[in-house]
Amino acid sequence: MNKEQFFINSIQNSKYNGDDGAFIDGYVYSMDAFFEDVHFKKDWFTLKQIAYKSMLVNISDAIAMNAKPKYALISIAIPKYYTNEDLQELANGFKKAAKDFDFEIIGGDTIENYKLDISITIISKTSKPIYRSGVKEGDYLCYTGKLGDSKKDLEALLSGKKIKKSSKFIKPVLKADFFYEASKYINASMDISDGLFLDLEKLSIASNIGFDIFRKIDDNIASSGEEYEILFSCSQKNLKKIEQIAKKHKTKLNFFAKAVKGSFRTNLSNHHFKN
Amino acid sequence: MNKEQFFINSIQNSKYNGDDGAFIDGYVYSMDAFFEDVHFKKDWFTLKQIAYKSMLVNISDAIAMNAKPKYALISIAIPKYYTNEDLQELANGFKKAAKDFDFEIIGGDTIENYKLDISITIISKTSKPIYRSGVKEGDYLCYTGKLGDSKKDLEALLSGKKIKKSSKFIKPVLKADFFYEASKYINASMDISDGLFLDLEKLSIASNIGFDIFRKIDDNIASSGEEYEILFSCSQKNLKKIEQIAKKHKTKLNFFAKAVKGSFRTNLSNHHFKN
Repeated sequence: MNKEQFFINSIQNSKYNGDDGAFIDGYVYSMDAFFEDVHFKKDWFTLKQIAYKSMLVNISDAIAMNAKPKYALISIAIPKYYTNEDLQELANGFKKAAKDFDFEIIGGDTIENYKLDISITIISKTSKPIYRSGVKEGDYLCYTGKLGDSKKDLEALLSGKKIKKSSKFIKPVLKADFFYEASKYINASMDISDGLFLDLEKLSIASNIGFDIFRKIDDNIASSGEEYEILFSCSQKNLKKIEQIAKKHKTKLNFFAKAVKGSFRTNLSNHHFKN
Repeated sequence: MNKEQFFINSIQNSKYNGDDGAFIDGYVYSMDAFFEDVHFKKDWFTLKQIAYKSMLVNISDAIAMNAKPKYALISIAIPKYYTNEDLQELANGFKKAAKDFDFEIIGGDTIENYKLDISITIISKTSKPIYRSGVKEGDYLCYTGKLGDSKKDLEALLSGKKIKKSSKFIKPVLKADFFYEASKYINASMDISDGLFLDLEKLSIASNIGFDIFRKIDDNIASSGEEYEILFSCSQKNLKKIEQIAKKHKTKLNFFAKAVKGSFRTNLSNHHFKN
């Protein structure tokens, strides 16, 4: 067991353990850290991009639970030498995310620190939360979009190369509209942050089920983290409806596995920068 | 204007600006950072004390708004070399706060970092939030407890001395029971985190009012930060009732000023360690 899991087990109420957020009384509460030299290097992004991505990785959790972000709190630690222009750029990144996803920033804490460290809490609303534990035997497993580029772009950055401004590693592309509309046909879901196979393992544990992978998944696809695509399961009878909704929203779907008795474990390691 | 204020003004919806937390639909949302080498030095506290204090400075905000903590989310960045025993000690500090104040830890994020940095979001419930903006002309101003020791103890620590385990600088003593019961007689409140006069200035700005200080306040009392006592105002007709409630809860009250037309500003500086 790694330290993160040890700490989570030591502290947390098991009732809320294991999902992207905690669902209580109509709201989903989720919190994620986005720390300099842990999740990103400062010269990889502009400050506005850092602020925007720090919000999006949080919003991604809300969407994967079928919840709409309503409010955000930001705890931000800022180096002393940052100018007012730097602060304005950060503020603009946060505000752009709030505008794009229609929520309000209602508070937080601002402190001085040695590096730029951001933690965000998102309060989102849902009438039908979708959990990781909902996969049923016979369900089809699917991920949205295209996987692999985040890993490729991270490797490029780590070897000192530049990447495109449009890279999903810089600006995640969340599939909110598709997923909210498709949600009534979805049995289980989570976002892909650690990599498809590692996240599939989490789904396996939460749903106590195995997966029969019927489509070849390249290692570069299976291990690409920080994709912020959605991994979900649905029953066969809803495949057509989900495909129609995906078509309407121009969202690519990749059905790749079927839920079967057993369990799924992977030897692939976490391909976040953070590890 | 300092950078913190500049950033807050750049980003935040003014509707929620200026209180210890944001009140929305029966709940108060507050978030505070507690960072190593910003808010504390590691050799000043045990890990359990650090975790406990990081929770209490957050709960203090909720209490000062007359809200009862219900849920907490913890974003924690932990150095790589911490052992499982270290993690258990941190977890015990968080859990002790949750037990003492009867709330649940529902989630968060755990990452590896160079130092121990904690951000906490508290979700608390109230049917009557108390704001900083509620001071009325003629109100009496009061603070709970005894001020000054946190400053003295911080100075001792900074000069390499040891302080008592019972120091409020290590373990804040929140006046929750008194304040919840007295709340119906209170017009405005906030917790004393920056120091009595700096916090009084914030009350002055929020309520657009001045203060006639009728009791001599020593500079060491006026500038002692991280006290986590409550500063509140009430009308004269409620003084007796509040004093009776304070007596019942053995809470010391210090009435020291009267609200008058004008404004209150101080030249005292922020006596947090963090600045």
